Amino acid sequence: MKTLTTLEPLTTKLLEIQRINSAASVLSWDQETYMPAGGGRARAEQIAVLQGLAHQKLVSADIERLLSQWIDPSTGQAIDQPGDQWDEPSRSLLREVWRDFSRAKKLPSEFVVTLARECSLAQQVWAQARAQNRFGLFLPNLGTVLSLKREEAGYLGYTYSPYDALLDLYEPGSTIAMLEPLFATLKERLIPLLRQIVQRPIHIDDDFLRQPYDSARQLEFGKLVLTAMGFDFDRGRLDLSAHPFTTSFHPTDVRLTTRVDERDLPSCLFSCIHEGGHGLYDQGLDPQYYGTPLGDSVSLGIHESQSRLWENCVGRSRSFWQFFYPMLQQTFPDQLKDVNMDRFYAAINCVRPSFIRVEADELTYNLHIMLRFEIERDLIEGKTHPEDLPAIWNHKMQEYLGIVPPTDAEGVLQDIHWSLGSFGYFPTYTLGNLYAVQFYEQAKLEIPHLEEEIAQGQLISLRRWLEQKIHRWGRMFTPDHLARRVTGSSINPEPFLSYVEKKYGEIYQL
Amino acid sequence: MKTLTTLEPLTTKLLEIQRINSAASVLSWDQETYMPAGGGRARAEQIAVLQGLAHQKLVSADIERLLSQWIDPSTGQAIDQPGDQWDEPSRSLLREVWRDFSRAKKLPSEFVVTLARECSLAQQVWAQARAQNRFGLFLPNLGTVLSLKREEAGYLGYTYSPYDALLDLYEPGSTIAMLEPLFATLKERLIPLLRQIVQRPIHIDDDFLRQPYDSARQLEFGKLVLTAMGFDFDRGRLDLSAHPFTTSFHPTDVRLTTRVDERDLPSCLFSCIHEGGHGLYDQGLDPQYYGTPLGDSVSLGIHESQSRLWENCVGRSRSFWQFFYPMLQQTFPDQLKDVNMDRFYAAINCVRPSFIRVEADELTYNLHIMLRFEIERDLIEGKTHPEDLPAIWNHKMQEYLGIVPPTDAEGVLQDIHWSLGSFGYFPTYTLGNLYAVQFYEQAKLEIPHLEEEIAQGQLISLRRWLEQKIHRWGRMFTPDHLARRVTGSSINPEPFLSYVEKKYGEIYQL
Repeated sequence: MKTLTTLEPLTTKLLEIQRINSAASVLSWDQETYMPAGGGRARAEQIAVLQGLAHQKLVSADIERLLSQWIDPSTGQAIDQPGDQWDEPSRSLLREVWRDFSRAKKLPSEFVVTLARECSLAQQVWAQARAQNRFGLFLPNLGTVLSLKREEAGYLGYTYSPYDALLDLYEPGSTIAMLEPLFATLKERLIPLLRQIVQRPIHIDDDFLRQPYDSARQLEFGKLVLTAMGFDFDRGRLDLSAHPFTTSFHPTDVRLTTRVDERDLPSCLFSCIHEGGHGLYDQGLDPQYYGTPLGDSVSLGIHESQSRLWENCVGRSRSFWQFFYPMLQQTFPDQLKDVNMDRFYAAINCVRPSFIRVEADELTYNLHIMLRFEIERDLIEGKTHPEDLPAIWNHKMQEYLGIVPPTDAEGVLQDIHWSLGSFGYFPTYTLGNLYAVQFYEQAKLEIPHLEEEIAQGQLISLRRWLEQKIHRWGRMFTPDHLARRVTGSSINPEPFLSYVEKKYGEIYQL
Repeated sequence: MKTLTTLEPLTTKLLEIQRINSAASVLSWDQETYMPAGGGRARAEQIAVLQGLAHQKLVSADIERLLSQWIDPSTGQAIDQPGDQWDEPSRSLLREVWRDFSRAKKLPSEFVVTLARECSLAQQVWAQARAQNRFGLFLPNLGTVLSLKREEAGYLGYTYSPYDALLDLYEPGSTIAMLEPLFATLKERLIPLLRQIVQRPIHIDDDFLRQPYDSARQLEFGKLVLTAMGFDFDRGRLDLSAHPFTTSFHPTDVRLTTRVDERDLPSCLFSCIHEGGHGLYDQGLDPQYYGTPLGDSVSLGIHESQSRLWENCVGRSRSFWQFFYPMLQQTFPDQLKDVNMDRFYAAINCVRPSFIRVEADELTYNLHIMLRFEIERDLIEGKTHPEDLPAIWNHKMQEYLGIVPPTDAEGVLQDIHWSLGSFGYFPTYTLGNLYAVQFYEQAKLEIPHLEEEIAQGQLISLRRWLEQKIHRWGRMFTPDHLARRVTGSSINPEPFLSYVEKKYGEIYQL
């Protein structure tokens, strides 16, 4: 039997590449958290050099030579020698390394460096443009990044649409052909549900969430919840950034960020829980596999399922707040002493069409994604031009959510993704929402008394289940295979739709 | 005339190497400021990979081929073709690149990676050992690092002592033969001066500096002084770390750290001013030369001269506090309203043998260095064994300062340097002290009314003078050449000795 030991000459090289990539991640994290404004240009070049080096090393003759003795290039699978087979980890490792290698091999090294540099610059201009509400400031950089991403899709190759090539970067196996019916189903049931809710004469009062809440205490409470979730602060941190995110340099060093708004209690709270879900995945990867695909997360959709499961299925549930609400009241007695649990539960689950994706409720969230999916698909296919984005954005907001943002900062400029070149990333948020409920329903079947445990503040059984079922496997299975292994079925919008119909049916008495 | 344009194929390669080195510096900075404890092992490997890559690239055949057409390997100087000369920047650049290249070429790549990894680990163990006051915990790592540094000296080569090879890493041109007479002169005049002071019946009351001072306000005041010094916070930051330091990723991104002790006002204050002096040097380097020796600081001795000039010649002067003391009183009215300027000035200049180098007064400071110089020279020469360090340390403390530290944490474990492998670094602190006074005396000659300006809080003329005379030149001149260019003479202990004899003569009425 051939095992990972056979592959050591390969994994040693992969480890070096991963360390370079992790270093680049440290530089990006610092850029978002602590870097002084003037340092941006030099930083972009430093990150570009590291990413260029990692790319060069991945597509090197060394790696090609090693792979070619073990891999059938037409299938990307390990070659079984007569009387000698590969064990499952090694077979998966080879499959995934081949995937990374053959994809990277398609991109010229200079292109990789240029893309990294332009994205790093674009990101900084985007931050300014958003702060100043000036789409025009960002437009040239957006144009540059877009044309580079179209160029990239060309290098990567595709059958139907250049956008498919980019989707596959974030969610292996996903295509327009798979997403369009999924979004159609969601649209078909979510838009009528939303209309029903908006027309109900029920007013949920959530003004009390917008009182002044001390920033330091908000952060403290966020950390308390993260600790209860099992996030290990000896192997991670929580910092502030304009846009909350999670990044990992190793399973022993996972960085979460959040933002705090004195007059918006949910913002810090739910971004902590959300990023905490990502962080648990990254801390749950097996450190012995660091540097190999087995030590890497399987896809962004699965990653997002972890953050959304914690944020929504857990963090916006009655059970969760049964335990944590009295603690929140103790933390903010002046603001919450007269707000009972039912009012709080309704307020954090209030459905209301709004401008900002990251603050959207569970129901409208997917409509925000659908809008982005359609826009970026058309941008990449050349059917839409970047200068028309604000108008198209606002038009679709009207169509799906019935509202139009008053400024571009609250509209087309709100998200960092396009500045980073992450076209094809947004759909993974919806995949994450669907997978989250699919996984959570399964967890409820397999963990006896899960909701009772949660109601007692015991979140550890759930974390362990997720670690055992999902986190520790890295890229051993494809995302679809993993979903079937855990839940018995591929991605399925039904559990999510039933969940929101039941939850909001109760809250809005439909 | 051949110019920097001729050298572009070389400087392009150097720029890539510098970017990798800057990335490694970001990782080290993060390790000291924000990294969670559990991340240390992975971080050490990440830094080691980057340093190994930078080293490989510096000693590559590409660079050797480029240099060999321009450099005479026996002299390390640029070759003048008939009728064609190099301009001064290019000639200096070649001389310094050759210095770096030929030195790096002597070290095997695996050795560089091992050294980087062991130092990163040793540094983390040192931090624990210091916190727990357990020299024995650090001893194995110290032994490993020491033997690696002796191995390094062997690779680098030397005429008289392996320690000379290490000294030259930090202060080009310095040797035991140059330092021993310098320390002898200092010893000869400082020890008697110290005895005289200690025997004076004058008691300087500095207890009021050890009242509780709010940490946040201490930091605010530190930033206020840094801003007045001209430190540009758009191109730099101030953070907290166990041991204050300055690091730079580019002239547009310079990071200072300090520490804050509620019951020790001078600690944060003077470490801010000290690190600010370093930071001004790094911000004053010419960004167009980033990546080449012309964009790098000339030596640690000269670097330290900048920090000590600001910390001592300026920051512990009457003129400086004439302006800043009323502001300090306003910041801490409860603690300082009854302390007049004379008492404050005497308190911050109180001479008292003490255990901790970084808190030592200007007079005893060099005795702390002399002790370290003698110990590390003997360690590297194999005349002293690491296990004997605590005893030797305490013996020399008794001899030079008349006191013995009660714990190793306040003795041999206090400094980070040996854990980092920085043997040969300490003497640059004394060189810095001497250069600082030499430069400051020259500045007073050249800037009319300098002390009057300082007394009005105007520190900008001094910063500009330093930038023009020292910072902007990078490694254009050798440290000794620079000193002669600025002050008309090589390093000279006389200005320093006159300065301390005059200053303390007044304070202690000798």
